[in-house]
Amino acid sequence: MIKKYIDVCLTPEQIGHFDLKDKIVVVTDILRATSCMVTAMAHEVQAIIPVATLEECQQLQFKGYLGAAERGGEQVEGFELGNSPFQYMNPDLKGKTIAVTTTNGTQAISKSGDAGQIVIGAFLNINAVARYIALTGKDVVIHCAGWKGLFNLEDTTFAGALLGKLSATHESESDSALMAQMLYDQGKNDLVGFIQKSSHAKRLSGFNIDKDIEFCMSMNKYNVVPRLRGREIRIN
Amino acid sequence: MIKKYIDVCLTPEQIGHFDLKDKIVVVTDILRATSCMVTAMAHEVQAIIPVATLEECQQLQFKGYLGAAERGGEQVEGFELGNSPFQYMNPDLKGKTIAVTTTNGTQAISKSGDAGQIVIGAFLNINAVARYIALTGKDVVIHCAGWKGLFNLEDTTFAGALLGKLSATHESESDSALMAQMLYDQGKNDLVGFIQKSSHAKRLSGFNIDKDIEFCMSMNKYNVVPRLRGREIRIN
Repeated sequence: MIKKYIDVCLTPEQIGHFDLKDKIVVVTDILRATSCMVTAMAHEVQAIIPVATLEECQQLQFKGYLGAAERGGEQVEGFELGNSPFQYMNPDLKGKTIAVTTTNGTQAISKSGDAGQIVIGAFLNINAVARYIALTGKDVVIHCAGWKGLFNLEDTTFAGALLGKLSATHESESDSALMAQMLYDQGKNDLVGFIQKSSHAKRLSGFNIDKDIEFCMSMNKYNVVPRLRGREIRIN
Repeated sequence: MIKKYIDVCLTPEQIGHFDLKDKIVVVTDILRATSCMVTAMAHEVQAIIPVATLEECQQLQFKGYLGAAERGGEQVEGFELGNSPFQYMNPDLKGKTIAVTTTNGTQAISKSGDAGQIVIGAFLNINAVARYIALTGKDVVIHCAGWKGLFNLEDTTFAGALLGKLSATHESESDSALMAQMLYDQGKNDLVGFIQKSSHAKRLSGFNIDKDIEFCMSMNKYNVVPRLRGREIRIN
């Protein structure tokens, strides 16, 4: 069998180097945007509208949607929700649509516009994403949201984990893919400890989010594959 | 003692995120531009003029300089020299000035323009570079040339090795620095074998450059610290 192509884009600034046409782009922002989206979808939020700016998010609030906004790791005043996955387990959100803007994750989604399909990936739904990709038989680019344009440890480690799960059907020859797999191999026996070394975890340590990090690093809590349909992220 | 700052820029496209003012920027392009420059300087080439384009390189040839040009791993026709370090051991080059253009390395030099100082680094002179930096007591950015704008394994592995040598005087909190050190730790017992997994080594394998790779991965052959002075790279 000829294997399909898979590659890893380390930051949204580099996505222009990748041909996304007809490919599945898996956007990941482990701490914490895509982990929140997956959690929300698993708790029957109807849809998420990712937007790049606080202004767009506020305009959607005015139209009656809930607004979730994070900048620099903190919830922005004037919005109902922030960037902690535990906020998205609230039964009151069931059936609701939420407009979301974050420092990195929603930018990565908006820069993946040329893709055949955009899928939301996190450790929380990694097996569901891998199964979905294997079934479609498409080429894949894993698009790491990074941190303000730069490489980050947690998103690339996720990329390495997903590459491993797709090794029977997909292959890559790029150095970023090779490095991602090395990172995951190095961290896999204690993912939480591994990611706590990261600059992001250190940056957020003042915000008391150890529980968030532990949750975001846990594998396969949810069996959902959120996808972008038009401007909305949905699971159906 | 308060340690100085050190960081790793994974590709020239990202150098705009780093404040280079008053810092030492160590440019590295292990396969093979900076390895060639270090080799040339150790063999008493007088100066190297890095230029971005083939046209500039040719114009300097017309003025009487030797011309070295590489694109996509191969020597370009019409130039005296290419990108193999063994070419730069020729005694006929002693005292000469060479205009050089390469796919990645010379671009990284030209994009480091705001730096306090630009130093040419390779495994071949890593201890000399580390000693020089420790003596100056300056902040440092290691600027990896990468491959056509993207991350590569060999330059980042060098960055990890240099970070290790400067750990007594310099510290970093970035994820790229952390990852670089992990890569070096993983590869250090067999650097040649480690780098042969890289996309670059595979890309070049048709060009019969195993000897070049082995040479470029060898540590501390030369005790020179080439630096950019005006438009010329020199050791004095």
